[in-house]
Amino acid sequence: MDKFEIAVIPGDGIGMEVVPAAMRVLDAAADIHGGLSFEWTTFPWNCEYYLKHGTMMPDDGIATLRGFHQIFLGAVGMPNLVPDHVSLWGLLIKIRREMQQSVNVRPAKLLNGLTSPLRNPSAFDLVVVRENSEGEYSDIGGRIHQGSDEMAIQSAVFTRKGTERVMRYAFQLAEKRRKHVTSATKSNGISHSMPFWDEVFRDVLKDYPECATISHHIDALAAFLVMKPHAFDVIVASNLFGDILTDLGGAIMGSIGVAPAANLNVERTYPSMFEPVHGSAPDIAGKGLANPLGQIWTGKMMLDFMGYEELGNLVLDAMEATLAAGVKTGDIGGVSSTSEVTNTIIDYLRRRT
Amino acid sequence: MDKFEIAVIPGDGIGMEVVPAAMRVLDAAADIHGGLSFEWTTFPWNCEYYLKHGTMMPDDGIATLRGFHQIFLGAVGMPNLVPDHVSLWGLLIKIRREMQQSVNVRPAKLLNGLTSPLRNPSAFDLVVVRENSEGEYSDIGGRIHQGSDEMAIQSAVFTRKGTERVMRYAFQLAEKRRKHVTSATKSNGISHSMPFWDEVFRDVLKDYPECATISHHIDALAAFLVMKPHAFDVIVASNLFGDILTDLGGAIMGSIGVAPAANLNVERTYPSMFEPVHGSAPDIAGKGLANPLGQIWTGKMMLDFMGYEELGNLVLDAMEATLAAGVKTGDIGGVSSTSEVTNTIIDYLRRRT
Ligand SMILES: CC(C)[C@H](C(=O)O)[C@@H](O)C(=O)O
Ligand SMILES: CC(C)[C@H](C(=O)O)[C@@H](O)C(=O)O
Repeated sequence: MDKFEIAVIPGDGIGMEVVPAAMRVLDAAADIHGGLSFEWTTFPWNCEYYLKHGTMMPDDGIATLRGFHQIFLGAVGMPNLVPDHVSLWGLLIKIRREMQQSVNVRPAKLLNGLTSPLRNPSAFDLVVVRENSEGEYSDIGGRIHQGSDEMAIQSAVFTRKGTERVMRYAFQLAEKRRKHVTSATKSNGISHSMPFWDEVFRDVLKDYPECATISHHIDALAAFLVMKPHAFDVIVASNLFGDILTDLGGAIMGSIGVAPAANLNVERTYPSMFEPVHGSAPDIAGKGLANPLGQIWTGKMMLDFMGYEELGNLVLDAMEATLAAGVKTGDIGGVSSTSEVTNTIIDYLRRRT
Repeated sequence: MDKFEIAVIPGDGIGMEVVPAAMRVLDAAADIHGGLSFEWTTFPWNCEYYLKHGTMMPDDGIATLRGFHQIFLGAVGMPNLVPDHVSLWGLLIKIRREMQQSVNVRPAKLLNGLTSPLRNPSAFDLVVVRENSEGEYSDIGGRIHQGSDEMAIQSAVFTRKGTERVMRYAFQLAEKRRKHVTSATKSNGISHSMPFWDEVFRDVLKDYPECATISHHIDALAAFLVMKPHAFDVIVASNLFGDILTDLGGAIMGSIGVAPAANLNVERTYPSMFEPVHGSAPDIAGKGLANPLGQIWTGKMMLDFMGYEELGNLVLDAMEATLAAGVKTGDIGGVSSTSEVTNTIIDYLRRRT
C-alpha cells in the first residue's frame, strides 16, 4: 500500500470549496484502487492569515512543505483584502520558486459534454508547457523619481538553464504525443529576451529530430488558439505567455473553471504543486456555485505524476460522464452545485468497479 | 480643397498588395467628397531594401517622413531574410518612437457579413487603446556569460507620463462612447511595473467621474474577450498586452486580416502612422489573395483623424456592404481576390453619391 502525504492549501475564495471536493474524489479513487491512500494535512495559509500574521505563511512554511510528497493548492488572492502582488509572491509564487517547480504543465482539450464558445470547435487536444520559475515574473526592478517624473522599471530574466529545461520537457512530452512543438515568442518586439528564447529553441530542437516545430509570435498564437486550436500539440512558452495562453485554453474549452495545471519539480528533489488555472473568484465564493472540475482534473494530474496514470484516466472519464449527463455548474451552462457535481463524479467512479 | 501629403510605406509581403488597394479606395472617397485630395509619396523601405543597403531606411528617413501630414504603412517583416527584431526596430518601431506615436488605437467589432469563430457572438464593439512608445518593448537589456551559464535580461520601462497619457486618451475616448474603461494589468505576477500601472490608473480615473472602470489581469482578460466580448467598451493596455489583445480582437471578428489600427501622435507634433494589425503574411504574398479590409479600415481611421469622420463612415459602410454581398477573400470564407474586393468597395462608394 502506497501512502502519500499531501500538504493541502485551499487558499482563498472558491479554493476552500473546490479543494475539499477534489480531495473527496481522490479519496474515492484511492479506495477503488485499493493500493494507495492519501494522508491530507491542511494549512490555513491565505489572505485572512496574512491579515492576522502579517505574512502569507509562517517562516518555516517552506521547510514544513518540503516534508510532504506533494502539495495540493486551490487558489490564492483576495485583492480587496491584500494587494495581489503581496499575496501571490508570499505564497503561490514563493512555493513555485523555493520548490524549484520550474515547469508548469497545462492541458486544454475539448471535453465530452462541455460547450465550447467556438462555433466549430475542432477536437483540439493540446498542452501548454510553461516556464514557471523566472522570465517576466521577476521581482527585479523598482521605481525612481516622484510625481510626473516617476517611473517603474521591471526586468525579466531568462537563463539558458531555465529556458532549456522547459523546452526539453516540452519536447519529451511531444515525443509521447503527436510530436509537434510550437514555440511562443515575441522576438519582433522584445529585443533581448525573445531572440535569446528563439536561439535556445533552435539549439534544443536539434536533439529531438522526430519532432516537427514552429515558432509563432504570442499575438498571432493567441489568435490561432481561437481560430485553429487543433493545429497545436505541445506549446512551450515563457512564464507570462504561458499564463495568458492557458487562460485562453480554459476559455476555448468552455470555462477557465475546468482548466487543470501541475507545477512540476521535474528533478523530484522537492514536492510538486498541483493547482488549477483559475483564481479564487471572490464574487462567487462561499455559495456552493464553484466549478470543481479544474481542481479535480488537477488531482488527476497529481495521480499521473505519482505513477497512477490509469487511475487518473478513470477520474477524467468520470468527469466526462458527469458532464455528458448534464450535471454541471452555472459557468458551463448547468444548474448543479459544487457538491452535486462532486457526488456524481464519485458515483461514476464507484460504478466503474 | 484640403490637400494631404501622405508618406506611403507598403513594406513587406502583402503590404505591397493591400496598401495600393486601400489608396484606391481613399482616392475614390476623396473624389466623391470633392473637398479633399491625397498626394501619395511611396518609399520602398522594407527587408529587400535592408539587404541592399544594410539599413531599413536611409539616415534621413525620419526627417523626410516628418515633412508629411500622415504615414500610411502596410506591414514589415520577412523573417526568412532579416531577423524580425532587426527589421521592426529599424522601421516600424523606430517610426512609432521617433514620431512620438504614443497611443495605438485598435477597434474590434462584429461586422455585418463577417463570420466570427465564436458560437454566439454578441454584438461587441470595443476599442483597445494600447501604449505605443515604451513598456515591455524596450531595447534595454542584454546578455551575460556563455554556454550553459548564459542569460538574457530585458527591462521594461513604464513612465508616469507615458502611462497617464495613454490612460487619459482611453478615458476621453470612452466619454464619447459607452463610458466604460477596462484596465489590463498583471499586478499579481509582475511586481513593479504592473502595480505602478494600477496606481496610475487609480489616479487618472478620478478625473473622469462619468466613466465606470474595472481592472482585469491580462490572462483573465484574454479569456473574457472570447467568453464575453460585449462586456467591453474601451480597454487600456500596455504595449505588449495591447498587442496580444488586438490580435485576439481580430480573431473574434473573424480574421486578423480585417483589424485596423492607428499609431497616433496625440499632440499632433509629428505625423501619425496608419497601419493595420496584421503582418506581412509572406506565405500568401504576391498571389492576390490578401484581405485588403484591414488596410482599408485603417484608411478610414486616417480620414477620421484628419477630420473627415463622415467620409470615414461611408468607407466602413461600403466595406460592410461588400462583405454582406459575399465578396470576400479566402481568410474570411470567400473566393474573391484582393482587387475584386477593392473594386466592389469602390463601386459601393460611388453608388452612394
Ligand atoms: C510587428 C510587431 C513588432 C508589431 C507589434 O508587436 O507591435 C505588430 O505585432 C503590431 O501589433 O503592430
Ligand atoms: C495568480 C497568478 C500569479 C498566477 C500566475 O500568473 O502565474 C495565475 O494566473 C496562474 O496562472 O497560476
